[in-house]
Amino acid sequence: MLNQFKHLREAAYEANLEIPRQSLAIYTFGNVSAIDRAAGVVAIKPSGVPYSELKPEDMVLVDLENQIVEGTNRPSSDTKTHILLYRHFPTIGGICHTHSTYAVAWAQAMRSIPNLGTTHADHLVAAVPVTEVMTDAMILGDYEHETGNQILDIFKKHHLSPEEVEMVLVACHGPFTWGKDAAKAVYNAAVLEELAKMAHLTLQLNPATPPIKQALVDKHYFRKHGKDAYYGQQ
Amino acid sequence: MLNQFKHLREAAYEANLEIPRQSLAIYTFGNVSAIDRAAGVVAIKPSGVPYSELKPEDMVLVDLENQIVEGTNRPSSDTKTHILLYRHFPTIGGICHTHSTYAVAWAQAMRSIPNLGTTHADHLVAAVPVTEVMTDAMILGDYEHETGNQILDIFKKHHLSPEEVEMVLVACHGPFTWGKDAAKAVYNAAVLEELAKMAHLTLQLNPATPPIKQALVDKHYFRKHGKDAYYGQQ
Amino acid sequence: MLNQFKHLREAAYEANLEIPRQSLAIYTFGNVSAIDRAAGVVAIKPSGVPYSELKPEDMVLVDLENQIVEGTNRPSSDTKTHILLYRHFPTIGGICHTHSTYAVAWAQAMRSIPNLGTTHADHLVAAVPVTEVMTDAMILGDYEHETGNQILDIFKKHHLSPEEVEMVLVACHGPFTWGKDAAKAVYNAAVLEELAKMAHLTLQLNPATPPIKQALVDKHYFRKHGKDAYYGQQ
Amino acid sequence: MLNQFKHLREAAYEANLEIPRQSLAIYTFGNVSAIDRAAGVVAIKPSGVPYSELKPEDMVLVDLENQIVEGTNRPSSDTKTHILLYRHFPTIGGICHTHSTYAVAWAQAMRSIPNLGTTHADHLVAAVPVTEVMTDAMILGDYEHETGNQILDIFKKHHLSPEEVEMVLVACHGPFTWGKDAAKAVYNAAVLEELAKMAHLTLQLNPATPPIKQALVDKHYFRKHGKDAYYGQQ
Repeated sequence: MLNQFKHLREAAYEANLEIPRQSLAIYTFGNVSAIDRAAGVVAIKPSGVPYSELKPEDMVLVDLENQIVEGTNRPSSDTKTHILLYRHFPTIGGICHTHSTYAVAWAQAMRSIPNLGTTHADHLVAAVPVTEVMTDAMILGDYEHETGNQILDIFKKHHLSPEEVEMVLVACHGPFTWGKDAAKAVYNAAVLEELAKMAHLTLQLNPATPPIKQALVDKHYFRKHGKDAYYGQQ
Repeated sequence: MLNQFKHLREAAYEANLEIPRQSLAIYTFGNVSAIDRAAGVVAIKPSGVPYSELKPEDMVLVDLENQIVEGTNRPSSDTKTHILLYRHFPTIGGICHTHSTYAVAWAQAMRSIPNLGTTHADHLVAAVPVTEVMTDAMILGDYEHETGNQILDIFKKHHLSPEEVEMVLVACHGPFTWGKDAAKAVYNAAVLEELAKMAHLTLQLNPATPPIKQALVDKHYFRKHGKDAYYGQQ
Repeated sequence: MLNQFKHLREAAYEANLEIPRQSLAIYTFGNVSAIDRAAGVVAIKPSGVPYSELKPEDMVLVDLENQIVEGTNRPSSDTKTHILLYRHFPTIGGICHTHSTYAVAWAQAMRSIPNLGTTHADHLVAAVPVTEVMTDAMILGDYEHETGNQILDIFKKHHLSPEEVEMVLVACHGPFTWGKDAAKAVYNAAVLEELAKMAHLTLQLNPATPPIKQALVDKHYFRKHGKDAYYGQQ
Repeated sequence: MLNQFKHLREAAYEANLEIPRQSLAIYTFGNVSAIDRAAGVVAIKPSGVPYSELKPEDMVLVDLENQIVEGTNRPSSDTKTHILLYRHFPTIGGICHTHSTYAVAWAQAMRSIPNLGTTHADHLVAAVPVTEVMTDAMILGDYEHETGNQILDIFKKHHLSPEEVEMVLVACHGPFTWGKDAAKAVYNAAVLEELAKMAHLTLQLNPATPPIKQALVDKHYFRKHGKDAYYGQQ
């Protein structure tokens, strides 16, 4: 085993275990990866292994050309989606994919999650975007790579920054989230599930609820992020 | 005790315990069976025994003529439904019946669960079918046997394969699921409950959500099943 | 302490602890009682004591005239409701009152819970009845006693038997359930909560869902109850 | 460390831990404070520290002028809201702020929670009020102080007493609750979440459900509160 990536494998392993702990997926669903930017190496969950059986050394190492660097297991079937995001979002350090219930419901309904309150604004400056539905050609082609392309496209279309919006819904599928490291990526997956449930309930109580005003978005987002942040410890 | 069926009793016992662990039923509701095809013997939960008191040796052994082979307990009241399915679905090795909340709601609403996303397509190629409501004559006749007939009928009517669709809703009642063994049958029961909840929430968010396109169904189903599968370890 | 009622106190205590275990109420909400018919003595939860602090010897003993037989604690504020039910339903041995979420929602909506499936029919032959709203005079009078009267009235009005329907919703308040003993009463409270949730979800999926046919009600109820029952062990 | 405030720090610490135990917020969301009225000192959760890492000595002490009395951590970003409430509600001893799911949904929908049943009336005499949406000037000004002002304004407008209504929803944000001490404040937060869920489900079952009659409000509130209370132990 390449000793140099011990910490990377462990970070990916720990973040993967947060998926069942936070009830973000059942059985083998979902996966988290972590990247070592200097080495250009990603540690990712092996495909189809139950969380209860996972060990740090099961993590598969792949490079940014989707080639296996180390590991006898097959990497997650979603690996190409992760790799494309790492290539185009250069500041992110970890990616998480889950099938959490409420986030999947919004993805299946092909609706973006509107920003209806400060819990949302504490974490991102916009609605959680939902990708376009893939064409048959994309699905029949390099499917997991195209899934990544759909994410990049919707970010381009809405002029979103992957630092200010660390989550997306893939239409008919489910959520992908990311962050500065793997732990933050799975944290964002849990936050997204909570936002998805809150927004669902809010619209049931008042289907005409408008998005919150921009001043409130800015206030909450920037009291937690950026140079003038005053939330948390220094 | 027939030592030859020790493994069968234990497989059925372990799968039954998954029902409360996965929150698929309360108290004594639900049951799982496992079959030894060579011997033509089925191990099934005894009727009305709480999961917390169940022991492997409590499993009742019955043959495919519904005759008790071994056991002093009464077998599950649903035994005849299990037996009929084993007789007509020759490739299945285990069957699970639960009263999980969302699946029961769809069964009571007499609606099949549409295929609205990849979580569904990862597991089956069609909507989860719902049987017809039984006639009074069926109910007053050999009720549990007729329950099995209703399942066979809906599979025939929709040209469904029990290998490609391992779950069904019995109208006004609840779900039956199966698989290559008892563990897979109860796994499918947990997956069905999740699909039932996701579909419910999706239709609340967008009542006009269409089923996903066939290319996506095929992509997801066949990346996990069949000779070209590339999900999971070899 | 009257040694003669040790078993009664313990039965009431154990059944009360099932309320938090089955998530049927938070904090101090809810209460269970058990009766010794020969002695005409009821053991009931003391008022406002958290479940986590409850001990068997805290149970208060009251007679059928609402007089305290033993105990330095105040009995549950709902004691008079329990006592009236014991007096008029001579075959019951335990009573449970909870504020479980879905059952309370139906009570607050002042709707009876229709019999939409076999989970319901396995336990009772009719819709779960809801009482009339009390008049101001009743509320300002002997309130808890009148609560019991409202229950008796709705049973009379619908010609219901307390053996065949072991649960009721008090309008604007919540559920009362009972059974042959205190354990069965709290079992019925958990079953009712499940039925309330299933019916709620069913009507969201299909607001026009009809009650199930009488043949199915009879089949399921009588395979579990009465002389021809074949569910459970002998 | 000021030994004089050991008990205050511990009371605030214990109450903060109840937030995750009662599932009222995930990660670092939410905060509880406790006041020593004689000293004019408030102990409050430090900003952005996960509950699992919190220690009693992490609590920050602030005075009623929002000045830090003791502590190297930054206090909760919501501290000014707490302080304003302590200044204007002289009888309260603890304040709790959460992002519990159903309460947030009502706050985001900008709806007060109507009094639909006795679970509600057991705890407060009126609907749970919701504040006005803040103006941009307020948001851009002293935001957390203005949040407190919005709460005071809605109480004045509806002539509510902070002793009889110990909870409020801040529009687009979430709930604040209080009580005689920090433990009671977080108890009220858990009760509010339950009331919010019950009311949500009730209105789904019957959108025209009216508030309960005044006699029932009074009966339930005053059997638990005031000089004629007969709920609980003396």
